[in-house]
Amino acid sequence: MENIITEDISAGVVGLGLMGTGVVVSLLISGHRVKAVAPLCEDLETAPERINYQLMKCAKSGLLSAPIDFYLSRLTISEDFSELERCQIVLECVIEIPGIKETVFKAIEAVVNTEAVIATNTSALPISDLQKYLLHPQRFLGIHWAEPSYLTPFMEITCGEKTDNKHAVWVYELAHQWGKEPTLLRKDLRGFITNRLMYAVYREGLHLVENGSATLEDVDKSFRYDAGSWMTLMGIFRRMDLLGIKDYARIFERVFPELCNDETVSPLMEQMVEINARGTQNLKGLYHYNETDAKKWDEAFVLFNEEIYKLASSYSVERKNKSR
Amino acid sequence: MENIITEDISAGVVGLGLMGTGVVVSLLISGHRVKAVAPLCEDLETAPERINYQLMKCAKSGLLSAPIDFYLSRLTISEDFSELERCQIVLECVIEIPGIKETVFKAIEAVVNTEAVIATNTSALPISDLQKYLLHPQRFLGIHWAEPSYLTPFMEITCGEKTDNKHAVWVYELAHQWGKEPTLLRKDLRGFITNRLMYAVYREGLHLVENGSATLEDVDKSFRYDAGSWMTLMGIFRRMDLLGIKDYARIFERVFPELCNDETVSPLMEQMVEINARGTQNLKGLYHYNETDAKKWDEAFVLFNEEIYKLASSYSVERKNKSR
Repeated sequence: MENIITEDISAGVVGLGLMGTGVVVSLLISGHRVKAVAPLCEDLETAPERINYQLMKCAKSGLLSAPIDFYLSRLTISEDFSELERCQIVLECVIEIPGIKETVFKAIEAVVNTEAVIATNTSALPISDLQKYLLHPQRFLGIHWAEPSYLTPFMEITCGEKTDNKHAVWVYELAHQWGKEPTLLRKDLRGFITNRLMYAVYREGLHLVENGSATLEDVDKSFRYDAGSWMTLMGIFRRMDLLGIKDYARIFERVFPELCNDETVSPLMEQMVEINARGTQNLKGLYHYNETDAKKWDEAFVLFNEEIYKLASSYSVERKNKSR
Repeated sequence: MENIITEDISAGVVGLGLMGTGVVVSLLISGHRVKAVAPLCEDLETAPERINYQLMKCAKSGLLSAPIDFYLSRLTISEDFSELERCQIVLECVIEIPGIKETVFKAIEAVVNTEAVIATNTSALPISDLQKYLLHPQRFLGIHWAEPSYLTPFMEITCGEKTDNKHAVWVYELAHQWGKEPTLLRKDLRGFITNRLMYAVYREGLHLVENGSATLEDVDKSFRYDAGSWMTLMGIFRRMDLLGIKDYARIFERVFPELCNDETVSPLMEQMVEINARGTQNLKGLYHYNETDAKKWDEAFVLFNEEIYKLASSYSVERKNKSR
């Protein structure tokens, strides 16, 4: 592997919503020069403030090695795609609508060279489908970030059918420079790993709530106080090993046939669409919120996220363990 | 509600394996006098040492308000069920085999009075089924503890069809005296809440591994670094609110039809049965272990469990929020 020096790599980010600005900040604090492009003019207006705010958060968390102004001096924000011309990697972070992504990919490909990597930040659309929109599909792949992107070690790198492995490996190495613990999926898997697992949980959880077996609060409580006590330390499979794995086969045999297999979306979720629920963002969601609550939850999450990784990283049990 | 004073309540525990001795310790440090009964003579031999060890762990964690000897003076360990005679609550913690549980329930009912609550510690067997073995089924219910039982706030209290609500509410109140954050299920739900949700995860996770989409390590990594970053703070439904819930309906619509609906158990799990895998207990499991690794994981879990609850309990955002 070549030795990757982020300072030498100019990175582009297209789409400057909440996720996009977080990615900009992650790349800046990892040493990249960043060309940020906002296809939506309202984002062009709000992005600088959001980036500033997130950089201040990073400063507070001790993630910066230079003053905020240094990072800002290495950033341009514009609506002009031609700014991306010399970027070696461009991260697309626009809304999850294929037609819009198509337009954006075409605009990016029109200016970058054929070897520049183009990555889409999607948690739902298949990479191979999006890849069809590209003139040079071999340099295209998925990079799935989690919020807040400058803090969490999570990152899924997903290849499409036509992705050239050399680009995937390069991004995988680069992701380590961004402070991530990336997973590299060579197969194009709908929903990737985490989301597929979480959607399985949501399907069952909604089923229990809809049929009156449990309340929303009870489901949340159960998950917080049970799964929450080991999840970050070990994940689901090692957990089985710790509980003496053998008995699971017989329990699964009894319980799997009773699990929800619904393909349709529950009335509760449709109701959320109808009332245009945006949760803590517009104070309409599964739980009730006033502005103070909503703000508290958002702040608590950012802080908790940081603290739990500090806690988890102080445990280094798994370093030398390999699976069968 | 009556004011419950644990010191006045004599509690029985039947079955002194790992879980049973943990329950003994939880009850002792909550103030109860405890009558512990071991139907298996090997447990009778090993239980005192395990209880001692766990009490020392509690002392280290600052959970004791008196010297260890004080708690031990309030405990009897025996193989004689007649010790349970004056207990107001008896917790059965034997192996998850209905026939064995039946024998134990009959032995308990033969000595306690008709108003004494009998609780089974099961995570898999339906309470209503077990309830059939009882002469006085109205005082029977499920109390599902999580390991290590003296530390985690998790507890599921589950009624069977014939459980008298007054007993369920009494246990629910009592559980708060044990330092738990209990959920009370008035419906008899197979697998209860957490396990059903987790079995849904395991079904999907095993499917991804078996079909070569992901490795065990990748699944664990994804869950640790994504779900692990918020699980303990908020649970799954509030998480949706925080991410702006509305879009989930359309994503679910696309992904639910692709999720695994298998009713059978995967070859990987059957292989674990064949090799008699007990994970960290006998160094055979999904991952490789030597004795040092296994011990490290077991210790790390106990410590992490404690630390994450300290961390989570320092966040009090949800106190006044109610769901719709």
